Amino acid sequence: MSSNRDIDALIDMMAKLPGLGPRSARRAVLHLIRKRELRMTPLADLMHTVAATARECGNCGNIGTEDICDICTSEKRANGMICVVEDVADLWAMERSGVFKGRYHVLGGTLSALDHVGPDELRIPHLLNRIEAEDVTEVILALNATVDGQTTAHYIADQLDGRVRLTSLAQGVPIGGELDYLDDGTITAALNARKTL
Amino acid sequence: MSSNRDIDALIDMMAKLPGLGPRSARRAVLHLIRKRELRMTPLADLMHTVAATARECGNCGNIGTEDICDICTSEKRANGMICVVEDVADLWAMERSGVFKGRYHVLGGTLSALDHVGPDELRIPHLLNRIEAEDVTEVILALNATVDGQTTAHYIADQLDGRVRLTSLAQGVPIGGELDYLDDGTITAALNARKTL
Repeated sequence: MSSNRDIDALIDMMAKLPGLGPRSARRAVLHLIRKRELRMTPLADLMHTVAATARECGNCGNIGTEDICDICTSEKRANGMICVVEDVADLWAMERSGVFKGRYHVLGGTLSALDHVGPDELRIPHLLNRIEAEDVTEVILALNATVDGQTTAHYIADQLDGRVRLTSLAQGVPIGGELDYLDDGTITAALNARKTL
Repeated sequence: MSSNRDIDALIDMMAKLPGLGPRSARRAVLHLIRKRELRMTPLADLMHTVAATARECGNCGNIGTEDICDICTSEKRANGMICVVEDVADLWAMERSGVFKGRYHVLGGTLSALDHVGPDELRIPHLLNRIEAEDVTEVILALNATVDGQTTAHYIADQLDGRVRLTSLAQGVPIGGELDYLDDGTITAALNARKTL
């Protein structure tokens, strides 16, 4: 493409990142080459730093630079609530909203018979241990509203067996959402969960 | 976002690349962190290599790792044709098609009164020198079909003043294009340049 081996290899690598394809990878690499001192070298340095320091929190599964992440070590966040999410990306999404003040538990996926993912692959036993160890009073299931997500939610509910209060995120019309564009399932859920004004 | 400074800084940097936004940057960074040894470290290494070695070809303006790029040093490509492009990305696009076997000249933009870009900012004088020095017989203008691109084409035509054969890329219906989705200008151009079957 660029008639240069290293540059082509860099474009190939960038093109394999999720959300990027060959075209956007080429644009990104050209942009980086044009600003190689201002952008490319600092980006490469930072990647090395993060590659060397990033690790999974041994308690909740969040990604940070400590063996136990900031959220798990913060005493302020020990309010007896654990929010269960599928993925680190979901944890970050919850944190961006800034509303939840408890701790998290990242499952690392959902139960899936098709993909041979069972409870032990998902840190569900570890969740049950944490409920005892951290005096948890409420578990909030913030799993995706997919079939596998809901199967996982039911399995966790079975395992907890009423030991703590178990809640899940409300389902309904998203803020700013237009009814016309919503799928039938969401409208049904929103109608069933309707509230008295 | 991730409650970690380095990771957040990395996401911010990635989000500034063209074609990426905050959401895709987060996905890309999470992907890299999960595969940090397999993907992130090699990517960072390669960025350092390219940042250290990439440079503009002193002759045509292509980006490579030598002072004069492979295309300019290859004797095979000294066929008397120079293809004039606005940008390195355009040069790479031409090379992907694999059809053009001559050399290139990257202008580095287009003439633009609004942005105060004159001929001297665009390596146009250098193009005129090359025409003498490299025994050029044909200059192909492969400039974008924008107002500024066409202004630049006219300016170059004036400067060459018939010294060499001057051609430009054909305009018309793109391969696989459907008339229904084409703009009026393209249809007009295709109609005016119609060919006898």
